[in-house]
Amino acid sequence: MNKRLIVYILGWVLIVEGIAMQVCTITSVIYRENEGLYFLITGAVSAGLGVLAVKVRKPKNMVLYQKAGFCATALSWIVLSLVGAMPFFLSREIPNYVDALFETVSGFTTTGATILVEVEQLSHGMLMWRSLMNWLGGMGVIVFLLALIPKLGGQQNIYLMRAESPGPIVGKAVPKMRDYAALLYGIYFGLTLTEFLLLFFGGMDVFDAINTSFATAGTGGFGVRNANIAAYDTYYFQTVIAVFMMLFGINFSFYILLIGKKFGQAFRMTELWVYLGLIVFCTVVMGFNIMSLYPTAYDAFHQSFFYTSSIITTTGFGIGDVNHWPMLSRALILFITFTGAMAGSTGGGFKISRIILLVKEARKEFFLLVHPRNVRAVVMDGKKVDHNTMRSTTVYLVVYILVFIVSFTLVSIEGRGFVTCFTSIAATLNNTGPGLGAVGPVGNYAMFTPLSKFVLIFDMLAGRLELFPVILLFIPAAWKKS
Amino acid sequence: MNKRLIVYILGWVLIVEGIAMQVCTITSVIYRENEGLYFLITGAVSAGLGVLAVKVRKPKNMVLYQKAGFCATALSWIVLSLVGAMPFFLSREIPNYVDALFETVSGFTTTGATILVEVEQLSHGMLMWRSLMNWLGGMGVIVFLLALIPKLGGQQNIYLMRAESPGPIVGKAVPKMRDYAALLYGIYFGLTLTEFLLLFFGGMDVFDAINTSFATAGTGGFGVRNANIAAYDTYYFQTVIAVFMMLFGINFSFYILLIGKKFGQAFRMTELWVYLGLIVFCTVVMGFNIMSLYPTAYDAFHQSFFYTSSIITTTGFGIGDVNHWPMLSRALILFITFTGAMAGSTGGGFKISRIILLVKEARKEFFLLVHPRNVRAVVMDGKKVDHNTMRSTTVYLVVYILVFIVSFTLVSIEGRGFVTCFTSIAATLNNTGPGLGAVGPVGNYAMFTPLSKFVLIFDMLAGRLELFPVILLFIPAAWKKS
Repeated sequence: MNKRLIVYILGWVLIVEGIAMQVCTITSVIYRENEGLYFLITGAVSAGLGVLAVKVRKPKNMVLYQKAGFCATALSWIVLSLVGAMPFFLSREIPNYVDALFETVSGFTTTGATILVEVEQLSHGMLMWRSLMNWLGGMGVIVFLLALIPKLGGQQNIYLMRAESPGPIVGKAVPKMRDYAALLYGIYFGLTLTEFLLLFFGGMDVFDAINTSFATAGTGGFGVRNANIAAYDTYYFQTVIAVFMMLFGINFSFYILLIGKKFGQAFRMTELWVYLGLIVFCTVVMGFNIMSLYPTAYDAFHQSFFYTSSIITTTGFGIGDVNHWPMLSRALILFITFTGAMAGSTGGGFKISRIILLVKEARKEFFLLVHPRNVRAVVMDGKKVDHNTMRSTTVYLVVYILVFIVSFTLVSIEGRGFVTCFTSIAATLNNTGPGLGAVGPVGNYAMFTPLSKFVLIFDMLAGRLELFPVILLFIPAAWKKS
Repeated sequence: MNKRLIVYILGWVLIVEGIAMQVCTITSVIYRENEGLYFLITGAVSAGLGVLAVKVRKPKNMVLYQKAGFCATALSWIVLSLVGAMPFFLSREIPNYVDALFETVSGFTTTGATILVEVEQLSHGMLMWRSLMNWLGGMGVIVFLLALIPKLGGQQNIYLMRAESPGPIVGKAVPKMRDYAALLYGIYFGLTLTEFLLLFFGGMDVFDAINTSFATAGTGGFGVRNANIAAYDTYYFQTVIAVFMMLFGINFSFYILLIGKKFGQAFRMTELWVYLGLIVFCTVVMGFNIMSLYPTAYDAFHQSFFYTSSIITTTGFGIGDVNHWPMLSRALILFITFTGAMAGSTGGGFKISRIILLVKEARKEFFLLVHPRNVRAVVMDGKKVDHNTMRSTTVYLVVYILVFIVSFTLVSIEGRGFVTCFTSIAATLNNTGPGLGAVGPVGNYAMFTPLSKFVLIFDMLAGRLELFPVILLFIPAAWKKS
């Protein structure tokens, strides 16, 4: 492995994080809070160490192959989280380091699961840091580096991109990595800004509008109010947020195609229609299912659309409790917790494109059973799906289930109820945030034991980085010289 | 499709069922119960129709290819169930036909889920019919026919065998189908008889001993006492039953190898060791986990061994409630509900051999990640696993999950709790019988709506016949002439 380059990348990660923290230092200064000091110190130390790592031993070559690329990405996210937890911990706003780490990992992985009972007790700087983590984690820090550092942005470093960008077939036909990464961040910034403007000019407080936009964009789900999005109790605010969650759950290739005026190609994406179809289906079924619980039909559909958008994109924003919804609605919520959003979006979950591939593979098997002499290949968006993509998708499913089972067993040790245990894994591994039961939209993760918290931290990272990079770190053979 | 041969097979199925019912007629006569009449009538009509079907239009060729073989098997099981429900219904002992059908499908598929609140209210003939269905369904009626009808038992009809015998790689190296089928039934009968003798000479009532042996052998789980196996409250009885459940969960190839004195080959089966390892692991962990709930450590381990054996083999016998067990134990119970027993046994579930294959495939992927230049094939029991076996295993997983999700959504409509909803599907699709919550070992399936009952009936059949044959019936293209 190209260890020097890994250290070089980790150095840059520390620099970027150190600089990003200064946004929170400034926030603290504006609100005249002393907590800015912790961001200033942590940021300075982080950036200082980063500069050291970058300058001292320059890497000779700038290419990382798959294994090293995966390791570099996983390590970057761990370093990012360990450092990111410091301001919470040092300021004693989250006095327990494990809790601070949980909150930070939850932030960067855009899970949005919180150990806080009342977020409004945090200072403005800390709240800003939570939202900013959501935003940075949504598109990814490595992707940011690829855009930032010319020498890294070569086509060879596709594995760095793949490790951080969700989905099975991402970035295959990318002409130039650096431009692509920059384009992604450009769209990301543009959409975030648009949402901010809509919220701000709709009358939302500027601080709330910035934070909400950050957390929506990353499909993170951290809010700055105890009541989360229910605090902005107008249809306008909640609808804007719901629509933007949906937009951030769309594969960014769609926007790139739109910008390139390739409308035909853009609207022929199978995954897009399945995604939109699922949203319509769940909104309608859940809307009718919960009708009797709300004063008007409009309210019921407002709730069902908001939650569908929030859960399928794995954002996890809430506008009330869903634990009292009928079982059918809760089943659908659980279902879209697992499907997740589109590949190549900022959303998490299993990814709809993977599900499409698997369903197509199953259909092929039945077709073969009915017409034994007709061998038909699986086709997606007009292209034949090659054997490797198919295999890696099925293997992904297997590894996903194994991680789920092991996590479930470990979390069940502390003896909570079935629903809490099951949905806490579902909500962290899919980076959604809230589950059902004690970890529902109005609950939190504070009560878990440190063991369970570590399991859930692992699940959040594994879910965000699509399993392989994180698990790889635990395989001793990966560290040996090849 | 060779429709004449399908009708011929269905005819034989009706004949066998009609004859089997006479065991119950005799039981009723012995106990001087009038209900024997219903078995006599149903059996006579069934056998009569069967003879008609067999005699009237003899099939010209005796070969069924995959599609037709799968259809024939699925149809056989449906016919078997529709007719098998008649005695319950006609006698008004189960006055609702849907309930009677549920009980019958549960019996033949060896699920053991019941809609009865108190089984002791049934007459002896009906109780015998339930156990006998468990026994017949365990090894399979088609397998019985293959042994019985010389013309059917040719090597070409492997698909009939495959559709009914559980597991991914069954019967590949079978020299002669008919001998193989006869051997299977021979071992099956021998083991059942041994269990009966052990129970009977241990002092169990002859009726109870026969029924319990039948239900154990098929890994069915129907009992003749309200308290199920808790009614035989001696360590001896419960231990004999637990050990025999475990024996019936072993791949029958193991016994065939033992008979052929190929001990080396027998004890080198990977699946055997994983199966036994899982049993030891769950018994030990659950034993310690529930220790405080029982008067002595011996009791705790007795309970944990019994339930491990009962659930992993998907028998579903109970000796008390497990809903009050700690979450870790319930998680493990749920886990082995899904794993199920060994392929080629009478047990259900996903099958341990499939899990081994999937884990090996996932390991291969990580190996490839670490050593990109080393391509390694998946090997099982010293043989390379071919691409088709691997693909059909992963497709099986996908279809299994899809069936689970659709079933879960449909059953959730009636609005029961999460645990009941989730574990009722798990318990029927894996042919276990009891789940947790309202369908736990001391509960039953009576309260479900007809819609849910039909979904669960489908799941039981789909689970027993390994999904494909049953789903195939719902594909219109399968019925068209090719």
